[in-house]
Amino acid sequence: MVGGGQGAFIGAVHRMAARLDGHYEMVAGALSSTPEKALASGRDLGLDASRSYPTWEAMLDGELARPEGERIDAVSIVTPNHLHYPVARAFAQAGIHVICDKPLVHSSDQANDLLAVVKQSGVVFAVTYNYTGYPLIRHARDMIRAGTLGDLRKVVVEYHQGWLATRLEDTDSKQAGWRTDPARSGLAGAVGDIGSHAENLAATVTGLELESICADLSTFVPGRRLDDDASLLLRFTSGARGVLLCSQIEVGHENDLRLRVAGTQGSLSWCQEHPNQLDYLPLDGPRQVLTRGQGYLSPAAQAATRLPGGHPEAFIEAFANVYSGAAEAIRARQERREPDPLIAIYPTLADGARGVHFIEKTVESSQSERKWTDARWTAEG
Amino acid sequence: MVGGGQGAFIGAVHRMAARLDGHYEMVAGALSSTPEKALASGRDLGLDASRSYPTWEAMLDGELARPEGERIDAVSIVTPNHLHYPVARAFAQAGIHVICDKPLVHSSDQANDLLAVVKQSGVVFAVTYNYTGYPLIRHARDMIRAGTLGDLRKVVVEYHQGWLATRLEDTDSKQAGWRTDPARSGLAGAVGDIGSHAENLAATVTGLELESICADLSTFVPGRRLDDDASLLLRFTSGARGVLLCSQIEVGHENDLRLRVAGTQGSLSWCQEHPNQLDYLPLDGPRQVLTRGQGYLSPAAQAATRLPGGHPEAFIEAFANVYSGAAEAIRARQERREPDPLIAIYPTLADGARGVHFIEKTVESSQSERKWTDARWTAEG
Amino acid sequence: MVGGGQGAFIGAVHRMAARLDGHYEMVAGALSSTPEKALASGRDLGLDASRSYPTWEAMLDGELARPEGERIDAVSIVTPNHLHYPVARAFAQAGIHVICDKPLVHSSDQANDLLAVVKQSGVVFAVTYNYTGYPLIRHARDMIRAGTLGDLRKVVVEYHQGWLATRLEDTDSKQAGWRTDPARSGLAGAVGDIGSHAENLAATVTGLELESICADLSTFVPGRRLDDDASLLLRFTSGARGVLLCSQIEVGHENDLRLRVAGTQGSLSWCQEHPNQLDYLPLDGPRQVLTRGQGYLSPAAQAATRLPGGHPEAFIEAFANVYSGAAEAIRARQERREPDPLIAIYPTLADGARGVHFIEKTVESSQSERKWTDARWTAEG
Amino acid sequence: MVGGGQGAFIGAVHRMAARLDGHYEMVAGALSSTPEKALASGRDLGLDASRSYPTWEAMLDGELARPEGERIDAVSIVTPNHLHYPVARAFAQAGIHVICDKPLVHSSDQANDLLAVVKQSGVVFAVTYNYTGYPLIRHARDMIRAGTLGDLRKVVVEYHQGWLATRLEDTDSKQAGWRTDPARSGLAGAVGDIGSHAENLAATVTGLELESICADLSTFVPGRRLDDDASLLLRFTSGARGVLLCSQIEVGHENDLRLRVAGTQGSLSWCQEHPNQLDYLPLDGPRQVLTRGQGYLSPAAQAATRLPGGHPEAFIEAFANVYSGAAEAIRARQERREPDPLIAIYPTLADGARGVHFIEKTVESSQSERKWTDARWTAEG
Repeated sequence: MVGGGQGAFIGAVHRMAARLDGHYEMVAGALSSTPEKALASGRDLGLDASRSYPTWEAMLDGELARPEGERIDAVSIVTPNHLHYPVARAFAQAGIHVICDKPLVHSSDQANDLLAVVKQSGVVFAVTYNYTGYPLIRHARDMIRAGTLGDLRKVVVEYHQGWLATRLEDTDSKQAGWRTDPARSGLAGAVGDIGSHAENLAATVTGLELESICADLSTFVPGRRLDDDASLLLRFTSGARGVLLCSQIEVGHENDLRLRVAGTQGSLSWCQEHPNQLDYLPLDGPRQVLTRGQGYLSPAAQAATRLPGGHPEAFIEAFANVYSGAAEAIRARQERREPDPLIAIYPTLADGARGVHFIEKTVESSQSERKWTDARWTAEG
Repeated sequence: MVGGGQGAFIGAVHRMAARLDGHYEMVAGALSSTPEKALASGRDLGLDASRSYPTWEAMLDGELARPEGERIDAVSIVTPNHLHYPVARAFAQAGIHVICDKPLVHSSDQANDLLAVVKQSGVVFAVTYNYTGYPLIRHARDMIRAGTLGDLRKVVVEYHQGWLATRLEDTDSKQAGWRTDPARSGLAGAVGDIGSHAENLAATVTGLELESICADLSTFVPGRRLDDDASLLLRFTSGARGVLLCSQIEVGHENDLRLRVAGTQGSLSWCQEHPNQLDYLPLDGPRQVLTRGQGYLSPAAQAATRLPGGHPEAFIEAFANVYSGAAEAIRARQERREPDPLIAIYPTLADGARGVHFIEKTVESSQSERKWTDARWTAEG
Repeated sequence: MVGGGQGAFIGAVHRMAARLDGHYEMVAGALSSTPEKALASGRDLGLDASRSYPTWEAMLDGELARPEGERIDAVSIVTPNHLHYPVARAFAQAGIHVICDKPLVHSSDQANDLLAVVKQSGVVFAVTYNYTGYPLIRHARDMIRAGTLGDLRKVVVEYHQGWLATRLEDTDSKQAGWRTDPARSGLAGAVGDIGSHAENLAATVTGLELESICADLSTFVPGRRLDDDASLLLRFTSGARGVLLCSQIEVGHENDLRLRVAGTQGSLSWCQEHPNQLDYLPLDGPRQVLTRGQGYLSPAAQAATRLPGGHPEAFIEAFANVYSGAAEAIRARQERREPDPLIAIYPTLADGARGVHFIEKTVESSQSERKWTDARWTAEG
Repeated sequence: MVGGGQGAFIGAVHRMAARLDGHYEMVAGALSSTPEKALASGRDLGLDASRSYPTWEAMLDGELARPEGERIDAVSIVTPNHLHYPVARAFAQAGIHVICDKPLVHSSDQANDLLAVVKQSGVVFAVTYNYTGYPLIRHARDMIRAGTLGDLRKVVVEYHQGWLATRLEDTDSKQAGWRTDPARSGLAGAVGDIGSHAENLAATVTGLELESICADLSTFVPGRRLDDDASLLLRFTSGARGVLLCSQIEVGHENDLRLRVAGTQGSLSWCQEHPNQLDYLPLDGPRQVLTRGQGYLSPAAQAATRLPGGHPEAFIEAFANVYSGAAEAIRARQERREPDPLIAIYPTLADGARGVHFIEKTVESSQSERKWTDARWTAEG
C-alpha cells in the first residue's frame, strides 16, 4: 500500500475492504508522505520492518529486489490525488498490478500515458469507484442490459454532502486540507471528489455515453480555491438526457448519493445510504422493492453478496467487492485462465481515464458561455 | 365556477377545497366547453337551473343581472389554460373576485394586461398554486424568513411524474389531450403544467428571485408537440444557485414534488407525497423531523392546520388553505378591514404573472445556444 | 349534530368529513353540554337560531315537531362517550338515522339494547371507526377476502401515541379531561379510546373473530384513573394468532396506528401516518408498494378515492368515506333500493357493540390471573 | 473455529467479523460435523493441514500439544446449538478463551455449569449476540444509562422473519434443518433462534430485568416440531412493561428486528434493517434522527464506528465489534491490564446463561394456564 498512514481516512477502508474476503494480505507499504510518518504508520499497522518503506520509490525498489514469488502481487494507491500518476505509472511499468483510488490522475495526458503503459505491461489496473460494488447496483446494470427498462430516457444522479459547508480546511482536517488544495486535488473540488463518483455510477449502471454537458460550478465558502458545488445538464449519445448534481455544502447531508433512471418500460431508484434496496417502477403494476440477498436478483448481484436478505451489507462490503473483483482478475492472469465474469467486476483504467476527461470537460464547460460542451470520450482522448 | 364539468379532474378538487372549510358555496356555473355539457354538468352537480349557464359569457351577464348581494362573490376558473385569460379578465373587470388555476395565461402580455385590469378593479385574485398551502411549506418559508438557515446557497426543486410516458393523448384521456395541445396548454407542456408549480414553490419558500436560467427541454414521446421533460440550472439574484427538474415521462413516479434548500446554517427537505413532515438539518446536531400539528411550528403553519399531529392532512386540505386564504382576503375587502395575515395567504396574480414569464424564459433558454438567459421578472415585465 | 361545540376536537372533523363530498348539510344541533355553550356554538357555526338547541332532548323534540321532509335525516353524535347511549337510543327510536362516534357505549347491556331498538326502528346506524375509510384498508380487506394472502396466521395491530405521557388532565385540555375520567370515558382509557380502533381495524381487514385474549393494562401516569397503556395477546377462532398494542404514553408518537397481517401466501403492512401506501409481501418475489389511486386496486378501494396517485389523501378523506358510505345507505333506504355495495361501506352498530364487548373483556382479562379470557362475541352478547 | 464448514452460513460471517479489524487470524479448525467434511472445509479455507482437525476433540488435543505461544488464543464455536456446551466447556476448562454463538446451551443446568467452569479457569467468554455491536445500539444504551429517557415505561422488541413460512426443513436447507430439530436446536425454535436475540437486545439497551412473562408460542407450519412464532407480554422488576414478538412465518419479512423504548422523558426507536439511524423522540421538540458517525454520539458508539456518517456500516461491522470487544478483553488479560471500557464491550457468558433461562421460562409459560410465569434470573439460576 502506498499512502493511507496516520491521519488518513480512506487507507483504513481499503485495508478492511481488502481483508474482508481474505484475498489480500498487506505485506509491504510506504504509508505516508514523509519517511518518519511512513515508518511510524508501518509500525502501527504491524508491517514487517523490512518491508515498511520510507518512500514509494524505496518500496518499488525494495520489492523488485526480492525474489520473484516473494514480491507484492499488487499495489494499492491511496494517496492524495496528485501522487496517483507517478506511483501508478512506476508500479504498472514494473509489472505490478495496481489498485488506485479515484479520481485517477490530474489530466487526460497523464491518463492516456497510463493507458499506454498498462497496455504494454499488461497488468490489472482497478480504480476504486467503490459504489459500483454494491450488489443492487450490479443488479440495476443487469436489468438495464437485459432491456427491462426499455430505451433509457432520463438519468438523474445526485451526490449531496454537507461536510465542507464551512472552512474546514482551516482546521487540522487532513481530509479537507488536500481536497480543497488544487495542487493535490487537481482541477476540481467537489466535481473531482464526488462528482466523478456520480459520473462513474451513472455510466456503469446505464452504459450510456456522454455527448455533451452544461456545467455550473460554484464555490460557496469564501476563500476556497476549488468548487464545492456543481450542477450539470447531460446529453447522452443515445438521445437520453440527464442531470448530475454534486455538492459538499448542503448542510446536514452526509453521503447522500442517489441514482434515478427512467426508460420507456420502467424506472429505477437507488440511494447509497440505504443500499440494500433498489426500487423498480414498472410501466404497469406497483412499485417493487428489490432487496439484496434474494434469488430473483441477477447472478452478478448474487455473487456480490455475503449475507441473506435483511442482514444488511454496506459500504465496506461494496468496497470489498471491487477488491475481490480485481483479485479474481489478478489470479486469472497469474493462472493464465479466463476470469469468472460474475466476480471479476471492477472499474478499469478506462473508467478512471474517462473520469478525468469528465472533470476536465466539466471545468471547461463551467467557464464557457456556450450552453453545450462536447464531452465525448474515447480511449485515445 | 367556470369549467370543471363532466370529464374534468381539477374542478372536483377545487369544489372539495372550497367546501372543506365552509367558506364557499357553489351557486352558479358554466361548467363545460359546450352548452350541452355545461348544462348537463350543472344538473349533475345540483346547480339551480337558473344559474347553470351554457357559457361563461352568459354566466357573467346572468350574475350581473342579479341584484347586488345575490350575485356570486367570486369566480373559480378551472378550464384548460387557454380560457383563463378571457374569463379572468372579464370577471375581474366586472368586480368579481377571481380564483384561477395555473399557469395563469399564455403570455406575459396577457399577464400584464390582467395585472392592469385587476389593479383598476381592485378585486382579489388568487392563483391556485396549491402546494403552497401545505402547513409545513408555510413553516419552511417562515424558517427561512427568520434566518434559521442563514444565507441560502442552493435550491433543488424536482417534480417527477410518469403518467405521460406513453402517448396517452391518443386515448380518450381529456387530461392528456389538452395538456399536450399547444393551442390549449400554451408554450410549454411539462414546464407549464408542473414546472411552474416547482418554480412557484421554490420562490414562495425561499423568497429568492431568479436572475438567469439555463434550460434543456425534451420531448421524449414520439409525435408529442410539447415538452414532456425539462431540466434547468438556476441562478438567483442573491448569488444562490439552484436546479429545477420536471418530467412527466419518469415511469412509475406519481406526483413526486420535492424541495431541498441549503443555507449556511442549515438545510430543509420536503416531499409532497409525505407532506406532513419537513426535515430540518441544522449545522450542528442531528436531523430533526418537524411534523404538522406541533406547537413548535410557526403561527402561519399552525393556522393552516385542522388536525393534531399524526392525523395526516394532505392535498385537499392544502388546496383548501389556498381557498380559505383567498376567502379571508375577500371578506376583509368586503368588511373593509385588514385581512388576518396568518390566514390570508395565497398565491397572487403577481405569482401567476411571474410563472408565465418563467415559462416563456424557459422555452427561450431551451432554444438558445447561450448558456444563460436572463429571467428576472418585475411586475411590469 | 349533538356535541362538537366550543373546545371540542372531533366535532369539527365530523363536520369537515360530512361536508367534503356534499352529501350532508348541517341544519340543526345541540352542540355542547350546557345550554349556553350549545347556543353559542350554534351561533359560531352559523346554525339557524330556530334549530340551534340548548339540549339534545330539545333538539329531538324540535325536529320531530317539524313537518316531515323538513326534519333532519340523520344525527351525528360526537359527545364524550357517556352520552352516546341515551342520545343514540332516543334518535334511533324516533326513526332518525344515527352516526355515532366510538366507542359506542359503556356496556354490552347498553349495546344490546341499542341493537334491539335499531332492529325495530330500522334506521341506518354507523359508528365512526374512521380508519376503516382509508382506500388501502379497503383494498387490504379485499385482498384477504380474495384469498391473496392464503390462510391468515398472524395479525399484529399497534397504536402508539404519546400525548398522555404526562398529567395533561390537570391542564385545561378538554380532550384529556374526559378521556381519563371513568364517568365519561367508561371502563377503559387507552383501550377504549384507541384500542377499540385497533380491534375494529384488525377485524374489518381480516374478518377474523376473536376467541380469547390475554391483556395486560397499565396506568403509568401517577394519579390517573384509567389505563394509559395496554398489550394483548390474541387468539382467533380460525386458529390465527395476534397481538394488539395500544399506548398513550409513548413519548413522541403521534397517531402511529399500524397493521401487519401474515398469511400462508403473503403479508400486508400498513401505517396510518403514511396511509397512501400498502406494502404487500408475496411468498415469491419482491415486496410491492401498492399506492392509492391506481387501477390495480379493488373496486371498493378505487371507489373510496378522490384524487389520482401521488396526490395524497388522508384522515379527513377517510373519515368522509365513512360518512359517504352511511349517506349511500340512508339514501338507498329513503329511495327503497339496494345500496351500492362499493359505496355503502361503514362500520355498523354490530361493529360498535363488538367493540364494547372487546373493551369489557380486555378489562376482565387484565384483572384475571388466568391466561386466557373468552372474548367471543355474537350479536346477542 | 469449531463448525462453520461447508454448507454453513454463520461460520463465514464469524470469519469475516473476526478478520475485519485485523485482531484475529484463523489458524486451526474442526470445521464440520464429520471428519471428511471437516478436513475438506479446512482445505477450502486454506487452513494448514496440520491444524485442520477432524473433530473438535482432536483440535483441543492438538492445540494443547503445541508449545505455549503457538497455540490458539481463542476458539470460536459456530456449530448447531447442541454442540455449544461440550465444546465450550472443554476449551474453557483448558484455558482457551471462547467466543460462542447463541443461544448458549440447551439448559440452565448446562449454563450454570459453564459459569462455574469459566469462573474457575478465568477465560474470556463472549456470546455473539451480534446485534448489540451496532454503534447506535450502544448509543441507545448510553442514552438510557445517562437518564435521557427518564424512567423507562414500555419496551417493545419485535423480530419478524418469513423464511420458515413453508416447510423449508423438507428441502436440503441445512439452516432450516437443524433449527427445527429439537435435538440440535433445543427446547425452542423461533424463540431460541431469534427471540433470544430480541431478549438480549432489549436487556442490553435498557438494563431492565425481567420479573415475569406471559408467552404464547405457536407452530404454524404443519409437521414442524418447534415453535415458529411467539408473542410475549413482559413485566420488568422496575415496573416497566413490555412486549416481545418473534416470528419466522411472516412471509416477506427478512430480518426485521426492531426495538422501541419509551420513558418518561423520551422515546427511542431503532430498526436493524436500517441500522445507521436511531430515532430519538424527546418529550418536547421534534423527533431527532441520530446517525452513526456523528460527534454527538456517546464515546462507546463512536468507538464502535469505522466510517464517517453516510458511509453505511452494517451487519458484519456490528458483528466485528463484538469480536473486537472480546479481542480487547483477551489482550488485556494477556497483558495483565484493564481492558479499555469503550472497546471491550461484548455479550458475556452471563448474557448467554440468562438467554437460556429466558428460553426455558418462555416455553414453561407457554404451556401454563397461569398468566404470569416468574422469569427472574440470577447467576445462580
